[in-house]
Amino acid sequence: MRKIGCTVWAIPEGYIPGSSVSDAHDLVSHEAACFLNPGDRDVEVKITLFFEAREPVGPYLVTVPAKRTLHMRFNDLTDPAPVPRDTSYASLIEASAPVVVQHTRLDSRQPAMALLTTIAFPAAQTSTSTEGAQA
Amino acid sequence: MRKIGCTVWAIPEGYIPGSSVSDAHDLVSHEAACFLNPGDRDVEVKITLFFEAREPVGPYLVTVPAKRTLHMRFNDLTDPAPVPRDTSYASLIEASAPVVVQHTRLDSRQPAMALLTTIAFPAAQTSTSTEGAQA
Amino acid sequence: MRKIGCTVWAIPEGYIPGSSVSDAHDLVSHEAACFLNPGDRDVEVKITLFFEAREPVGPYLVTVPAKRTLHMRFNDLTDPAPVPRDTSYASLIEASAPVVVQHTRLDSRQPAMALLTTIAFPAAQTSTSTEGAQA
Amino acid sequence: MRKIGCTVWAIPEGYIPGSSVSDAHDLVSHEAACFLNPGDRDVEVKITLFFEAREPVGPYLVTVPAKRTLHMRFNDLTDPAPVPRDTSYASLIEASAPVVVQHTRLDSRQPAMALLTTIAFPAAQTSTSTEGAQA
Repeated sequence: MRKIGCTVWAIPEGYIPGSSVSDAHDLVSHEAACFLNPGDRDVEVKITLFFEAREPVGPYLVTVPAKRTLHMRFNDLTDPAPVPRDTSYASLIEASAPVVVQHTRLDSRQPAMALLTTIAFPAAQTSTSTEGAQA
Repeated sequence: MRKIGCTVWAIPEGYIPGSSVSDAHDLVSHEAACFLNPGDRDVEVKITLFFEAREPVGPYLVTVPAKRTLHMRFNDLTDPAPVPRDTSYASLIEASAPVVVQHTRLDSRQPAMALLTTIAFPAAQTSTSTEGAQA
Repeated sequence: MRKIGCTVWAIPEGYIPGSSVSDAHDLVSHEAACFLNPGDRDVEVKITLFFEAREPVGPYLVTVPAKRTLHMRFNDLTDPAPVPRDTSYASLIEASAPVVVQHTRLDSRQPAMALLTTIAFPAAQTSTSTEGAQA
Repeated sequence: MRKIGCTVWAIPEGYIPGSSVSDAHDLVSHEAACFLNPGDRDVEVKITLFFEAREPVGPYLVTVPAKRTLHMRFNDLTDPAPVPRDTSYASLIEASAPVVVQHTRLDSRQPAMALLTTIAFPAAQTSTSTEGAQA
Protein backbone atom coordinates (compact mmCIF):
# COMPACT_ATOMS: atom_id res chain seq x y z
CA MET A 1 0.00 0.00 0.00
CA ARG A 2 1.33 3.45 -0.89
CA LYS A 3 2.33 5.80 1.90
CA ILE A 4 -0.47 7.96 3.32
CA GLY A 5 0.07 11.15 5.28
CA CYS A 6 3.02 13.12 6.59
CA THR A 7 5.90 12.63 8.99
CA VAL A 8 5.56 15.88 10.96
CA TRP A 9 2.33 17.17 12.52
CA ALA A 10 1.52 20.05 14.85
CA ILE A 11 -1.36 20.60 17.30
CA PRO A 12 -1.12 24.12 18.76
CA GLU A 13 -4.15 23.68 21.05
CA GLY A 14 -3.72 21.40 24.05
CA TYR A 15 -5.52 21.44 27.38
CA ILE A 16 -6.57 18.58 29.63
CA PRO A 17 -9.37 19.70 31.97
CA GLY A 18 -8.45 18.80 35.52
CA SER A 19 -11.89 17.61 36.54
CA SER A 20 -14.67 15.41 35.23
CA VAL A 21 -18.18 14.61 36.36
CA SER A 22 -17.58 10.96 35.46
CA ASP A 23 -14.80 8.49 36.21
CA ALA A 24 -15.84 6.18 33.38
CA HIS A 25 -12.94 5.74 30.93
CA ASP A 26 -14.98 6.88 27.95
CA LEU A 27 -16.44 9.95 29.67
CA VAL A 28 -13.53 11.29 31.72
CA SER A 29 -12.16 14.58 30.39
CA HIS A 30 -9.39 13.72 27.98
CA GLU A 31 -7.41 14.89 24.99
CA ALA A 32 -6.29 12.52 22.27
CA ALA A 33 -4.10 12.36 19.20
CA CYS A 34 -5.59 9.75 16.88
CA PHE A 35 -3.09 8.12 14.50
CA LEU A 36 -3.77 6.14 11.35
CA ASN A 37 -0.98 3.95 9.95
CA PRO A 38 -2.38 2.06 6.96
CA GLY A 39 1.10 0.93 5.91
CA ASP A 40 2.85 -2.41 6.23
CA ARG A 41 5.43 -1.35 8.81
CA ASP A 42 5.21 -0.12 12.39
CA VAL A 43 5.83 3.61 12.78
CA GLU A 44 7.79 5.09 15.67
CA VAL A 45 6.44 8.43 16.88
CA LYS A 46 8.17 11.12 18.94
CA ILE A 47 6.00 13.73 20.66
CA THR A 48 7.36 16.97 22.11
CA LEU A 49 5.15 19.14 24.31
CA PHE A 50 5.50 22.93 24.34
CA PHE A 51 4.23 25.18 27.14
CA GLU A 52 3.64 28.87 27.69
CA ALA A 53 6.11 29.41 30.51
CA ARG A 54 8.49 26.50 30.73
CA GLU A 55 10.88 24.52 28.55
CA PRO A 56 9.57 21.86 26.15
CA VAL A 57 9.18 18.33 27.53
CA GLY A 58 9.90 15.16 25.57
CA PRO A 59 10.27 13.19 23.54
CA TYR A 60 7.39 10.90 24.43
CA LEU A 61 7.71 7.71 22.41
CA VAL A 62 4.80 5.70 21.05
CA THR A 63 4.46 3.07 18.33
CA VAL A 64 1.65 2.94 15.80
CA PRO A 65 1.62 -0.66 14.56
CA ALA A 66 1.26 -1.50 10.88
CA LYS A 67 -2.36 -1.47 9.64
CA ARG A 68 -3.63 -0.10 12.93
CA THR A 69 -5.04 3.06 14.45
CA LEU A 70 -3.90 4.39 17.81
CA HIS A 71 -6.12 6.73 19.80
CA MET A 72 -3.48 8.00 22.20
CA ARG A 73 -4.67 9.96 25.21
CA PHE A 74 -2.30 12.69 26.37
CA ASN A 75 -3.71 11.88 29.84
CA ASP A 76 -1.89 8.56 29.71
CA LEU A 77 1.59 9.89 28.91
CA THR A 78 3.97 9.51 31.86
CA ASP A 79 7.53 9.25 30.48
CA PRO A 80 9.47 11.55 30.76
CA ALA A 81 6.73 13.33 32.79
CA PRO A 82 2.94 13.39 33.15
CA VAL A 83 1.08 16.10 31.23
CA PRO A 84 -0.02 18.79 33.67
CA ARG A 85 -3.78 19.34 33.94
CA ASP A 86 -5.49 22.69 33.52
CA THR A 87 -2.41 23.91 31.64
CA SER A 88 -2.12 25.18 28.06
CA TYR A 89 0.25 23.21 25.90
CA ALA A 90 0.94 22.35 22.25
CA SER A 91 2.40 19.26 20.65
CA LEU A 92 4.79 18.53 17.81
CA ILE A 93 4.63 15.01 16.40
CA GLU A 94 7.48 13.45 14.39
CA ALA A 95 7.00 10.02 12.83
CA SER A 96 9.47 7.60 11.26
CA ALA A 97 7.12 7.17 8.28
CA PRO A 98 3.96 8.93 7.07
CA VAL A 99 0.85 8.72 9.29
CA VAL A 100 -2.31 10.81 9.60
CA VAL A 101 -3.12 12.61 12.86
CA GLN A 102 -6.41 13.99 14.21
CA HIS A 103 -6.85 15.94 17.45
CA THR A 104 -9.85 15.39 19.73
CA ARG A 105 -10.91 16.57 23.17
CA LEU A 106 -13.79 15.45 25.36
CA ASP A 107 -14.48 17.96 28.12
CA SER A 108 -16.69 16.62 30.90
CA ARG A 109 -16.08 19.21 33.57
CA GLN A 110 -19.84 19.75 33.42
CA PRO A 111 -22.68 17.23 33.24
CA ALA A 112 -23.12 18.19 29.60
CA MET A 113 -19.87 17.23 27.94
CA ALA A 114 -18.43 19.05 24.94
CA LEU A 115 -16.38 17.74 22.03
CA LEU A 116 -13.95 19.27 19.58
CA THR A 117 -11.85 17.82 16.76
CA THR A 118 -9.66 18.81 13.84
CA ILE A 119 -7.18 17.16 11.54
CA ALA A 120 -3.78 18.20 12.90
CA PHE A 121 -1.55 20.48 10.81
CA PRO A 122 0.65 18.53 8.34
CA ALA A 123 3.81 20.48 9.03
CA ALA A 124 6.35 18.65 6.91
CA GLN A 125 4.60 19.40 3.68
CA THR A 126 3.94 23.04 4.45
CA SER A 127 7.37 23.63 5.87
CA THR A 128 8.91 22.45 2.64
CA SER A 129 6.74 24.77 0.57
CA THR A 130 7.45 27.73 2.80
CA GLU A 131 11.17 27.19 2.75
CA GLY A 132 11.10 26.85 -1.00
CA ALA A 133 9.28 30.15 -1.35
CA GLN A 134 11.82 31.90 0.81
CA ALA A 135 14.91 30.43 -0.81
CA MET B 1 -17.75 20.75 -14.36
CA ARG B 2 -14.09 20.45 -13.43
CA LYS B 3 -13.10 17.81 -10.89
CA ILE B 4 -13.28 18.86 -7.25
CA GLY B 5 -11.44 17.14 -4.42
CA CYS B 6 -9.24 14.09 -4.00
CA THR B 7 -9.49 10.35 -4.48
CA VAL B 8 -7.98 9.25 -1.14
CA TRP B 9 -9.09 10.54 2.26
CA ALA B 10 -8.24 9.54 5.84
CA ILE B 11 -10.18 9.97 9.11
CA PRO B 12 -8.00 8.81 12.04
CA GLU B 13 -10.69 9.46 14.66
CA GLY B 14 -13.65 7.09 14.72
CA TYR B 15 -15.92 6.12 17.60
CA ILE B 16 -19.62 5.33 17.64
CA PRO B 17 -21.01 5.78 21.17
CA GLY B 18 -22.95 2.68 22.16
CA SER B 19 -25.80 4.50 23.82
CA SER B 20 -28.12 7.42 23.18
CA VAL B 21 -30.76 9.20 25.18
CA SER B 22 -32.93 9.37 22.07
CA ASP B 23 -34.01 6.83 19.47
CA ALA B 24 -34.97 9.54 16.97
CA HIS B 25 -32.97 9.10 13.75
CA ASP B 26 -31.59 12.62 13.83
CA LEU B 27 -30.60 12.51 17.51
CA VAL B 28 -29.25 8.98 17.98
CA SER B 29 -25.47 8.89 18.56
CA HIS B 30 -23.85 8.51 15.17
CA GLU B 31 -20.73 9.13 13.14
CA ALA B 32 -20.85 10.16 9.51
CA ALA B 33 -18.65 10.67 6.48
CA CYS B 34 -20.26 13.34 4.32
CA PHE B 35 -19.37 13.15 0.62
CA LEU B 36 -19.79 15.80 -2.06
CA ASN B 37 -19.65 14.72 -5.70
CA PRO B 38 -20.35 17.78 -7.84
CA GLY B 39 -19.26 15.93 -11.00
CA ASP B 40 -21.27 14.45 -13.86
CA ARG B 41 -20.53 10.79 -13.10
CA ASP B 42 -21.28 8.52 -10.16
CA VAL B 43 -18.28 7.81 -7.93
CA GLU B 44 -17.60 4.39 -6.40
CA VAL B 45 -16.14 4.56 -2.90
CA LYS B 46 -14.24 1.89 -0.98
CA ILE B 47 -13.91 2.30 2.80
CA THR B 48 -11.46 0.33 4.94
CA LEU B 49 -11.73 0.43 8.73
CA PHE B 50 -8.63 0.15 10.93
CA PHE B 51 -8.70 -0.83 14.60
CA GLU B 52 -6.32 -0.77 17.55
CA ALA B 53 -6.12 -4.49 18.19
CA ARG B 54 -7.49 -6.41 15.22
CA GLU B 55 -7.01 -6.66 11.44
CA PRO B 56 -8.56 -4.05 9.13
CA VAL B 57 -12.11 -4.72 7.90
CA GLY B 58 -13.36 -3.90 4.42
CA PRO B 59 -13.82 -2.79 1.83
CA TYR B 60 -17.24 -1.30 2.44
CA LEU B 61 -18.68 -0.15 -0.89
CA VAL B 62 -20.87 2.89 -1.37
CA THR B 63 -21.83 5.00 -4.38
CA VAL B 64 -21.98 8.78 -4.41
CA PRO B 65 -24.23 9.65 -7.34
CA ALA B 66 -23.36 12.43 -9.78
CA LYS B 67 -24.32 15.92 -8.54
CA ARG B 68 -25.30 14.60 -5.14
CA THR B 69 -24.14 14.59 -1.55
CA LEU B 70 -24.14 11.46 0.60
CA HIS B 71 -24.17 11.73 4.39
CA MET B 72 -23.14 8.16 5.15
CA ARG B 73 -23.50 6.97 8.72
CA PHE B 74 -20.89 4.46 9.83
CA ASN B 75 -23.71 3.12 12.04
CA ASP B 76 -25.47 1.87 8.92
CA LEU B 77 -22.56 -0.13 7.45
CA THR B 78 -23.18 -3.88 7.62
CA ASP B 79 -21.23 -5.52 4.78
CA PRO B 80 -18.72 -7.14 5.34
CA ALA B 81 -19.46 -6.54 9.07
CA PRO B 82 -21.21 -4.02 11.34
CA VAL B 83 -19.01 -1.34 12.91
CA PRO B 84 -18.50 -2.21 16.59
CA ARG B 85 -19.81 0.35 19.10
CA ASP B 86 -17.72 1.89 21.87
CA THR B 87 -14.60 0.93 19.92
CA SER B 88 -11.85 3.17 18.52
CA TYR B 89 -11.38 2.91 14.78
CA ALA B 90 -10.09 4.91 11.81
CA SER B 91 -11.13 4.94 8.18
CA LEU B 92 -9.39 5.13 4.82
CA ILE B 93 -11.55 6.20 1.90
CA GLU B 94 -10.62 5.51 -1.74
CA ALA B 95 -12.80 6.92 -4.51
CA SER B 96 -12.90 6.19 -8.24
CA ALA B 97 -12.90 9.94 -8.95
CA PRO B 98 -12.33 13.08 -6.85
CA VAL B 99 -14.84 13.83 -4.08
CA VAL B 100 -14.72 15.93 -0.90
CA VAL B 101 -15.14 14.28 2.52
CA GLN B 102 -16.10 15.76 5.90
CA HIS B 103 -16.24 13.86 9.21
CA THR B 104 -19.00 14.50 11.76
CA ARG B 105 -20.10 12.93 15.03
CA LEU B 106 -23.21 13.53 17.10
CA ASP B 107 -22.80 12.15 20.60
CA SER B 108 -26.07 11.85 22.52
CA ARG B 109 -25.00 9.59 25.35
CA GLN B 110 -26.12 12.43 27.60
CA PRO B 111 -29.22 14.62 27.44
CA ALA B 112 -27.01 17.44 26.20
CA MET B 113 -25.60 16.20 22.92
CA ALA B 114 -22.18 17.20 21.59
CA LEU B 115 -21.01 17.68 18.01
CA LEU B 116 -17.67 17.61 16.27
CA THR B 117 -16.59 17.99 12.66
CA THR B 118 -13.54 18.39 10.43
CA ILE B 119 -12.74 18.16 6.78
CA ALA B 120 -11.08 14.75 6.38
CA PHE B 121 -7.39 14.55 5.44
CA PRO B 122 -6.84 14.63 1.65
CA ALA B 123 -4.27 11.86 1.61
CA ALA B 124 -3.61 11.44 -2.09
CA GLN B 125 -2.32 14.94 -2.57
CA THR B 126 -0.14 14.98 0.53
CA SER B 127 1.21 11.51 -0.03
CA THR B 128 2.50 12.57 -3.42
CA SER B 129 4.22 15.64 -2.03
CA THR B 130 5.81 13.73 0.82
CA GLU B 131 7.15 11.01 -1.42
CA GLY B 132 8.54 13.61 -3.77
CA ALA B 133 10.37 15.34 -0.93
CA GLN B 134 11.93 12.07 0.17
CA ALA B 135 12.97 10.86 -3.27
CA MET C 1 -2.70 43.61 -0.11
CA ARG C 2 -1.79 40.31 -1.71
CA LYS C 3 -4.55 37.84 -2.45
CA ILE C 4 -5.46 35.47 0.37
CA GLY C 5 -7.30 32.19 -0.07
CA CYS C 6 -8.93 30.29 -2.91
CA THR C 7 -11.74 30.80 -5.39
CA VAL C 8 -13.47 27.41 -4.98
CA TRP C 9 -14.49 25.88 -1.65
CA ALA C 10 -16.53 22.83 -0.69
CA ILE C 11 -18.51 22.01 2.48
CA PRO C 12 -19.82 18.41 2.26
CA GLU C 13 -21.67 18.57 5.60
CA GLY C 14 -24.81 20.67 5.71
CA TYR C 15 -27.85 20.37 7.96
CA ILE C 16 -30.07 23.04 9.48
CA PRO C 17 -31.93 21.65 12.50
CA GLY C 18 -35.62 22.38 12.16
CA SER C 19 -36.19 23.33 15.75
CA SER C 20 -34.62 25.47 18.46
CA VAL C 21 -35.27 26.02 22.12
CA SER C 22 -34.66 29.73 21.62
CA ASP C 23 -35.92 32.30 19.12
CA ALA C 24 -33.08 34.70 19.90
CA HIS C 25 -31.10 35.46 16.72
CA ASP C 26 -27.79 34.39 18.25
CA LEU C 27 -29.13 31.15 19.74
CA VAL C 28 -31.52 29.84 17.08
CA SER C 29 -30.23 26.69 15.34
CA HIS C 30 -28.28 27.83 12.31
CA GLU C 31 -25.54 26.93 9.87
CA ALA C 32 -23.13 29.51 8.52
CA ALA C 33 -20.41 29.97 5.93
CA CYS C 34 -18.03 32.62 7.22
CA PHE C 35 -16.13 34.51 4.53
CA LEU C 36 -13.02 36.65 4.88
CA ASN C 37 -12.14 39.04 2.06
CA PRO C 38 -9.08 41.02 3.12
CA GLY C 39 -8.61 42.39 -0.41
CA ASP C 40 -9.34 45.80 -1.88
CA ARG C 41 -12.22 44.73 -4.13
CA ASP C 42 -15.66 43.29 -3.48
CA VAL C 43 -15.92 39.57 -4.26
CA GLU C 44 -19.00 38.03 -5.88
CA VAL C 45 -19.83 34.55 -4.58
CA LYS C 46 -21.98 31.85 -6.17
CA ILE C 47 -23.22 29.03 -3.92
CA THR C 48 -24.69 25.78 -5.25
CA LEU C 49 -26.46 23.38 -2.89
CA PHE C 50 -26.34 19.61 -3.45
CA PHE C 51 -28.81 17.15 -1.94
CA GLU C 52 -29.09 13.40 -1.49
CA ALA C 53 -32.20 12.82 -3.56
CA ARG C 54 -32.91 15.85 -5.72
CA GLU C 55 -31.20 18.07 -8.28
CA PRO C 56 -28.77 20.80 -7.15
CA VAL C 57 -30.25 24.21 -6.37
CA GLY C 58 -28.57 27.52 -7.16
CA PRO C 59 -26.73 29.63 -7.71
CA TYR C 60 -27.29 31.69 -4.60
CA LEU C 61 -25.51 35.02 -5.01
CA VAL C 62 -23.86 36.96 -2.22
CA THR C 63 -21.26 39.71 -2.11
CA VAL C 64 -18.36 39.85 0.33
CA PRO C 65 -17.31 43.51 0.40
CA ALA C 66 -13.66 44.56 0.30
CA LYS C 67 -11.91 44.40 3.68
CA ARG C 68 -14.90 42.78 5.32
CA THR C 69 -16.05 39.48 6.73
CA LEU C 70 -19.48 38.00 6.00
CA HIS C 71 -21.00 35.44 8.35
CA MET C 72 -23.68 34.16 6.01
CA ARG C 73 -26.40 31.98 7.48
CA PHE C 74 -27.75 29.32 5.15
CA ASN C 75 -31.00 29.85 7.08
CA ASP C 76 -31.32 33.27 5.44
CA LEU C 77 -30.96 32.15 1.81
CA THR C 78 -34.22 32.50 -0.11
CA ASP C 79 -33.38 33.01 -3.81
CA PRO C 80 -33.82 30.80 -5.82
CA ALA C 81 -35.37 28.77 -2.93
CA PRO C 82 -35.17 28.50 0.86
CA VAL C 83 -32.86 25.82 2.28
CA PRO C 84 -34.99 22.93 3.55
CA ARG C 85 -34.70 22.19 7.28
CA ASP C 86 -33.86 18.76 8.73
CA THR C 87 -32.38 17.83 5.34
CA SER C 88 -28.83 16.77 4.48
CA TYR C 89 -27.12 18.98 1.94
CA ALA C 90 -23.65 20.09 0.81
CA SER C 91 -22.43 23.33 -0.69
CA LEU C 92 -20.00 24.35 -3.41
CA ILE C 93 -18.77 27.93 -3.25
CA GLU C 94 -17.25 29.74 -6.24
CA ALA C 95 -15.84 33.23 -5.79
CA SER C 96 -14.75 35.85 -8.32
CA ALA C 97 -11.48 36.34 -6.38
CA PRO C 98 -9.75 34.51 -3.51
CA VAL C 99 -11.52 34.42 -0.14
CA VAL C 100 -11.26 32.16 2.91
CA VAL C 101 -14.28 30.13 4.07
CA GLN C 102 -15.08 28.52 7.43
CA HIS C 103 -18.12 26.36 8.21
CA THR C 104 -19.98 26.62 11.53
CA ARG C 105 -23.17 25.19 13.00
CA LEU C 106 -24.98 26.03 16.21
CA ASP C 107 -27.48 23.35 17.13
CA SER C 108 -29.98 24.41 19.77
CA ARG C 109 -32.58 21.71 19.39
CA GLN C 110 -31.87 20.97 23.04
CA PRO C 111 -31.42 23.35 25.99
CA ALA C 112 -27.70 22.59 25.86
CA MET C 113 -26.57 23.81 22.47
CA ALA C 114 -23.72 22.23 20.52
CA LEU C 115 -21.21 23.82 18.16
CA LEU C 116 -19.04 22.56 15.33
CA THR C 117 -16.63 24.26 12.93
CA THR C 118 -13.99 23.56 10.29
CA ILE C 119 -12.16 25.48 7.63
CA ALA C 120 -13.94 24.52 4.40
CA PHE C 121 -12.07 22.47 1.78
CA PRO C 122 -10.05 24.68 -0.63
CA ALA C 123 -11.11 22.85 -3.78
CA ALA C 124 -9.46 24.92 -6.46
CA GLN C 125 -5.95 24.28 -5.25
CA THR C 126 -6.42 20.57 -4.66
CA SER C 127 -8.31 20.03 -7.86
CA THR C 128 -5.37 21.41 -9.80
CA SER C 129 -2.91 19.14 -8.05
CA THR C 130 -5.07 16.08 -8.55
CA GLU C 131 -5.58 16.75 -12.22
CA GLY C 132 -1.88 17.27 -12.68
CA ALA C 133 -1.11 13.93 -11.07
CA GLN C 134 -3.56 12.16 -13.34
CA ALA C 135 -2.55 13.86 -16.57
CA MET D 1 15.11 22.83 14.30
CA ARG D 2 13.66 23.29 10.85
CA LYS D 3 10.89 25.82 10.33
CA ILE D 4 7.37 24.55 10.94
CA GLY D 5 4.22 26.21 9.62
CA CYS D 6 3.34 29.33 7.67
CA THR D 7 3.65 33.07 8.08
CA VAL D 8 0.08 34.05 7.11
CA TRP D 9 -3.06 32.51 8.61
CA ALA D 10 -6.77 33.33 8.33
CA ILE D 11 -9.69 32.62 10.67
CA PRO D 12 -12.95 33.72 8.99
CA GLU D 13 -15.14 32.80 11.99
CA GLY D 14 -14.89 35.00 15.05
CA TYR D 15 -17.47 35.69 17.75
CA ILE D 16 -17.02 36.27 21.47
CA PRO D 17 -20.28 35.55 23.30
CA GLY D 18 -21.14 38.49 25.51
CA SER D 19 -22.27 36.44 28.48
CA SER D 20 -21.17 33.44 30.52
CA VAL D 21 -22.70 31.42 33.31
CA SER D 22 -19.31 31.32 35.02
CA ASP D 23 -16.70 33.95 35.86
CA ALA D 24 -13.96 31.35 36.30
CA HIS D 25 -11.08 32.08 33.91
CA ASP D 26 -11.19 28.62 32.35
CA LEU D 27 -14.97 28.58 31.87
CA VAL D 28 -15.80 32.13 30.81
CA SER D 29 -16.92 32.37 27.17
CA HIS D 30 -13.81 33.03 25.12
CA GLU D 31 -12.23 32.70 21.72
CA ALA D 32 -8.56 31.87 21.27
CA ALA D 33 -5.86 31.65 18.64
CA CYS D 34 -3.36 29.04 19.77
CA PHE D 35 0.16 29.49 18.39
CA LEU D 36 3.00 26.99 18.27
CA ASN D 37 6.54 28.28 17.70
CA PRO D 38 8.91 25.31 17.91
CA GLY D 39 11.79 27.37 16.50
CA ASP D 40 14.80 28.94 18.17
CA ARG D 41 13.75 32.58 17.76
CA ASP D 42 10.86 34.63 19.05
CA VAL D 43 8.19 35.36 16.43
CA GLU D 44 6.42 38.71 16.18
CA VAL D 45 2.76 38.42 15.19
CA LYS D 46 0.43 41.07 13.75
CA ILE D 47 -3.32 40.43 13.92
CA THR D 48 -5.86 42.42 11.92
CA LEU D 49 -9.58 42.08 12.71
CA PHE D 50 -12.21 42.39 9.97
CA PHE D 51 -15.88 43.15 10.61
CA GLU D 52 -19.13 43.05 8.67
CA ALA D 53 -19.97 46.73 8.77
CA ARG D 54 -16.93 48.74 9.81
CA GLU D 55 -13.30 49.25 8.84
CA PRO D 56 -10.65 46.70 9.90
CA VAL D 57 -8.97 47.25 13.26
CA GLY D 58 -5.31 46.56 13.98
CA PRO D 59 -2.61 45.58 14.01
CA TYR D 60 -2.67 43.89 17.36
CA LEU D 61 0.89 42.87 18.27
CA VAL D 62 1.84 39.75 20.19
CA THR D 63 5.04 37.78 20.60
CA VAL D 64 5.28 34.00 20.52
CA PRO D 65 8.55 33.19 22.30
CA ALA D 66 10.98 30.60 20.94
CA LYS D 67 10.06 27.01 21.85
CA ARG D 68 6.77 28.08 23.37
CA THR D 69 3.05 27.95 22.71
CA LEU D 70 0.77 30.95 23.21
CA HIS D 71 -2.95 30.45 23.75
CA MET D 72 -4.03 34.00 23.04
CA ARG D 73 -7.57 34.97 23.96
CA PHE D 74 -9.17 37.54 21.69
CA ASN D 75 -11.02 38.61 24.85
CA ASP D 76 -7.76 39.96 26.23
CA LEU D 77 -6.81 42.16 23.26
CA THR D 78 -7.07 45.86 24.12
CA ASP D 79 -4.62 47.77 21.89
CA PRO D 80 -5.60 49.48 19.60
CA ALA D 81 -9.17 48.62 20.80
CA PRO D 82 -11.03 45.88 22.69
CA VAL D 83 -12.76 43.23 20.58
CA PRO D 84 -16.51 43.92 20.64
CA ARG D 85 -18.67 41.15 22.13
CA ASP D 86 -21.64 39.55 20.38
CA THR D 87 -20.20 40.80 17.07
CA SER D 88 -19.11 38.78 14.02
CA TYR D 89 -15.48 39.28 13.05
CA ALA D 90 -12.62 37.52 11.25
CA SER D 91 -8.89 37.64 11.79
CA LEU D 92 -5.81 37.74 9.58
CA ILE D 93 -2.58 36.74 11.25
CA GLU D 94 0.86 37.68 9.86
CA ALA D 95 3.98 36.34 11.55
CA SER D 96 7.65 37.27 11.18
CA ALA D 97 8.54 33.57 10.84
CA PRO D 98 6.56 30.34 10.40
CA VAL D 99 4.19 29.32 13.21
CA VAL D 100 1.15 27.05 13.40
CA VAL D 101 -2.26 28.46 14.41
CA GLN D 102 -5.39 26.74 15.74
CA HIS D 103 -8.73 28.43 16.45
CA THR D 104 -10.84 27.51 19.49
CA ARG D 105 -13.99 28.83 21.14
CA LEU D 106 -15.56 27.96 24.46
CA ASP D 107 -19.16 29.15 24.63
CA SER D 108 -20.60 29.16 28.14
CA ARG D 109 -23.67 31.32 27.61
CA GLN D 110 -25.58 28.30 28.86
CA PRO D 111 -24.87 25.95 31.79
CA ALA D 112 -23.82 23.32 29.25
CA MET D 113 -20.84 24.83 27.49
CA ALA D 114 -19.97 24.08 23.86
CA LEU D 115 -16.57 23.87 22.17
CA LEU D 116 -15.33 24.22 18.62
CA THR D 117 -11.89 24.10 17.04
CA THR D 118 -10.10 23.99 13.70
CA ILE D 119 -6.61 24.48 12.39
CA ALA D 120 -6.65 27.98 10.90
CA PHE D 121 -6.24 28.41 7.13
CA PRO D 122 -2.56 28.58 6.06
CA ALA D 123 -3.01 31.49 3.68
CA ALA D 124 0.52 32.16 2.54
CA GLN D 125 0.98 28.78 1.00
CA THR D 126 -2.38 28.68 -0.73
CA SER D 127 -2.19 32.26 -1.88
CA THR D 128 1.05 31.48 -3.67
CA SER D 129 -0.44 28.48 -5.40
CA THR D 130 -3.54 30.37 -6.46
CA GLU D 131 -1.59 33.26 -7.87
CA GLY D 132 0.63 30.86 -9.76
CA ALA D 133 -2.39 29.18 -11.33
CA GLN D 134 -3.75 32.53 -12.47
CA ALA D 135 -0.50 33.93 -13.85
